[in-house]
Amino acid sequence: MAKERPLILVTNDDSIHAGGLKTLIEVACELGDVIVVAPEDSQSGMSHAITIKQPIRVTKKSEENGLRVYTCSGTPVDCVKLALNQLLDRKPDLLLSGINHGSNASVSVIYSGTMAAAIEGGVNGIHSVGFSLLDYSPDANFQAAGNIAKRILKEVLNNGIPTEICLNINIPAIPEVEIKGVKICRQTKGFWQEEFDKRTDPFNRDYFWLTGYFKNNEPEAQDTDEWALKNGYVSIVPIRVDFTCFDYIKELEKRKF
Amino acid sequence: MAKERPLILVTNDDSIHAGGLKTLIEVACELGDVIVVAPEDSQSGMSHAITIKQPIRVTKKSEENGLRVYTCSGTPVDCVKLALNQLLDRKPDLLLSGINHGSNASVSVIYSGTMAAAIEGGVNGIHSVGFSLLDYSPDANFQAAGNIAKRILKEVLNNGIPTEICLNINIPAIPEVEIKGVKICRQTKGFWQEEFDKRTDPFNRDYFWLTGYFKNNEPEAQDTDEWALKNGYVSIVPIRVDFTCFDYIKELEKRKF
Repeated sequence: MAKERPLILVTNDDSIHAGGLKTLIEVACELGDVIVVAPEDSQSGMSHAITIKQPIRVTKKSEENGLRVYTCSGTPVDCVKLALNQLLDRKPDLLLSGINHGSNASVSVIYSGTMAAAIEGGVNGIHSVGFSLLDYSPDANFQAAGNIAKRILKEVLNNGIPTEICLNINIPAIPEVEIKGVKICRQTKGFWQEEFDKRTDPFNRDYFWLTGYFKNNEPEAQDTDEWALKNGYVSIVPIRVDFTCFDYIKELEKRKF
Repeated sequence: MAKERPLILVTNDDSIHAGGLKTLIEVACELGDVIVVAPEDSQSGMSHAITIKQPIRVTKKSEENGLRVYTCSGTPVDCVKLALNQLLDRKPDLLLSGINHGSNASVSVIYSGTMAAAIEGGVNGIHSVGFSLLDYSPDANFQAAGNIAKRILKEVLNNGIPTEICLNINIPAIPEVEIKGVKICRQTKGFWQEEFDKRTDPFNRDYFWLTGYFKNNEPEAQDTDEWALKNGYVSIVPIRVDFTCFDYIKELEKRKF
């Protein structure tokens, strides 16, 4: 997989203005030629949504020293599709998404625009990695996360990853010297316990804000990403691009539908 | 899992106005008490998106004979979250999504709002099934699909399905007598080959419409949903709610990240 100058596609879901994207672009530029296609506005929680009811706008922001930067009015997955089909002459060697402001561990992976972009890369046969830092602040410090991302990506560029998976990498928000290492994990079983905030508008109509908190169904399980992150490790979960539950096909075949 | 009158939550992504939803509600009402929470407008291609940048509205449309109907201004996953956390006193016995106007076979499962609602059900420990008919027309005839859905759902209510999976059921758009049976399948390997339709607005700015066609990477593989559907079978793919690629954890653990 390693090339003299690999071609790297970078995107995210926090928008072109996000500090985490800036750090990831810096990392990518040390590793190869870079094209950035990032959303104009925040697309958090947009998952694998694509824009089909309205047209998409693309704006070229800059091009210099092997770095091209575009913004896109659509979702993170729109960004990937546009890059692959309109902006690039060849398939990139690597797709990077993030660094997300906030965790995408456990079940958050299914709501995440950051990880959807990485999954879309995998669907298109591109080695794809999503990064998240466990700090939701717009002013989060991404320096340690950037160093960690660079180290992991050198390994990925040297040895590749199968395109039937992508990597969901979460980084704890602690000083770099306190990070104990990298742990390969499975996605923690859990869910978001919603607590809709019900309000009444000036015209006496109800509306709801979606809020809630994450519930970990297995806080003691040491092979999970939540456990790794709580205990000072960077977590890497291999995410399968194919949603089939192969283990259950034989079981279902016995039944009479 | 069978109860005297199971409680069934019905949603979709084609909106409250869709013919496929009407058919699925009729089927559900024959099987149990029903609550419908469906989007006000079409949410096709919204995948697992949740609404966090604006509030959500819910409107009660009707309540009679064990059938309650609500519309929601949000996405299909918002509909499920609202139903579980605001509108229902207990967990439903079954979540049904669809019947979608158009295929959700192969990789379309990851873009589909219909299947995202079913996956959200699985995450919340609810037996969940998504249905799609291979006819995109708003005027599609859902009679055969309704009969097939009813037969399959009776089996599901009798024998259950593990909540770590949900079922992605696609139905070919052929006369009922020509349907050869039901096949348990895996998701076909393939992708959408985008062909962005580039246009120029009256102010001389470019914009793109997302269009394209499905590319099947393995048209000969007889254990796939695309093959089953092309050959006159109803396809059932078990979809795993947990995105971890367990097969690859040991492999990654050998590497030095």
